[in-house]
Amino acid sequence: MFTSETQIRIHYALTDQMGVVYHGHYAQFYEIGRTEAIRTLGYTYKDIEAMGILLVVTDIHTRFLRPAKYDDLITVKTTLREIPLYHKIVFHSEIYNQENELLNTGDVTLYFMEAKTMKRCEMPEVLKEKLSKYF
Amino acid sequence: MFTSETQIRIHYALTDQMGVVYHGHYAQFYEIGRTEAIRTLGYTYKDIEAMGILLVVTDIHTRFLRPAKYDDLITVKTTLREIPLYHKIVFHSEIYNQENELLNTGDVTLYFMEAKTMKRCEMPEVLKEKLSKYF
Amino acid sequence: MFTSETQIRIHYALTDQMGVVYHGHYAQFYEIGRTEAIRTLGYTYKDIEAMGILLVVTDIHTRFLRPAKYDDLITVKTTLREIPLYHKIVFHSEIYNQENELLNTGDVTLYFMEAKTMKRCEMPEVLKEKLSKYF
Amino acid sequence: MFTSETQIRIHYALTDQMGVVYHGHYAQFYEIGRTEAIRTLGYTYKDIEAMGILLVVTDIHTRFLRPAKYDDLITVKTTLREIPLYHKIVFHSEIYNQENELLNTGDVTLYFMEAKTMKRCEMPEVLKEKLSKYF
Repeated sequence: MFTSETQIRIHYALTDQMGVVYHGHYAQFYEIGRTEAIRTLGYTYKDIEAMGILLVVTDIHTRFLRPAKYDDLITVKTTLREIPLYHKIVFHSEIYNQENELLNTGDVTLYFMEAKTMKRCEMPEVLKEKLSKYF
Repeated sequence: MFTSETQIRIHYALTDQMGVVYHGHYAQFYEIGRTEAIRTLGYTYKDIEAMGILLVVTDIHTRFLRPAKYDDLITVKTTLREIPLYHKIVFHSEIYNQENELLNTGDVTLYFMEAKTMKRCEMPEVLKEKLSKYF
Repeated sequence: MFTSETQIRIHYALTDQMGVVYHGHYAQFYEIGRTEAIRTLGYTYKDIEAMGILLVVTDIHTRFLRPAKYDDLITVKTTLREIPLYHKIVFHSEIYNQENELLNTGDVTLYFMEAKTMKRCEMPEVLKEKLSKYF
Repeated sequence: MFTSETQIRIHYALTDQMGVVYHGHYAQFYEIGRTEAIRTLGYTYKDIEAMGILLVVTDIHTRFLRPAKYDDLITVKTTLREIPLYHKIVFHSEIYNQENELLNTGDVTLYFMEAKTMKRCEMPEVLKEKLSKYF
């Protein structure tokens, strides 16, 4: 299992008139979480794109338990439960507030795709190696 | 079954550097779809809030089939498959482009809640009546 | 003078916890306004990009007079006061609510640029011709 | 003069199909900059709202010099050039990338307003005291 944590401060733009974070913004939090997770492996998602490979989101499932609020310092905990097989990778995200209450969970499925052909491909070997020690 | 359609023009702000609509923006399209669906019943979501009732999103499941692109005129088809029982309502959304290709589907679950107490409540009677003729 | 009007319905995602539209979203309204202004000329901004030309924003000045609110149907009135000379074009936007109150004004300056070289260029001739009858 | 710096990592949601940060998102960067500037004074904007006072944006002037790009780590430098008189406060923002290139400048004017009456008011005394030592 590979896990990584990153923090995000909620700014005004993310709130809505219910006085909480707009539900549609959590997908961004998952994105930030998995980007920082990849960074801790010594690579960046930007590097992956530079290799000619895109990670395309194909499925998101979000559960909203408690709202995040303005100025909250949320923690996004991003977990890979298994080494990606073939073209598919699933990131599991849990979002906590500063009181350590679980606010939200998200499961995001992405496909590795060749930018040129937009055909599915496998995770780059260099990343697989970096990941393998966690499993 | 109750169904409603509305159209949205994709502007630049919604695109990302993959040259398609950022995956996190589809939740907004579902929101616009269900708002316009309610409006066709002769009520607005704003009216519902004025009655002291909030519709709080508790679960979203999104499947991405094809990307929406800049300047696309997408159609959001919003369907209620059953009259909401108790506090729970589920909207099913399908998003098509101008070539009538299915791009994306979303299932959004919301709870009716009293704004004052933040306790679950039922759908307002006036809305139930409006809806009943479709089922 | 060339003027065009378009309408936008304010959805929840655009509001913030002050109960009004977040101030940072008006730049999007100007974008939608000038895109629709170009469309009324028989061209689209997408067509311009397909010609290898980008319109890059270099300056925005926004004045906030009254807030737009949830479910408002705002009108964006977009005006070109002069035919663009050289590489520079200035769009003036005024935003009104359904009570015809002026909410916001914006002056957006953009440069025509060749996508390939990212050098400044002139407005495409075909657009100049379309515009000339208004001046 | 009072100055504060904060850093923001550019995530995918902020980019557009030109491959750069969408011009409309800079207002959010200024917001984050001034929020963190206030925090360094030992107060938060959230505290100010809790005192019944809102800071409402009335004017923004943005100049775009160079684009911010995906995964850039930008620095927002926020400066108060004078102690706010009466109800008005002006924040000057400069945004730099990791190569220390100036990307963007913004001048944001806000009014202090009583939340209850929506009438203009002065900056809270406690904040004025905190600020006074910088001028």
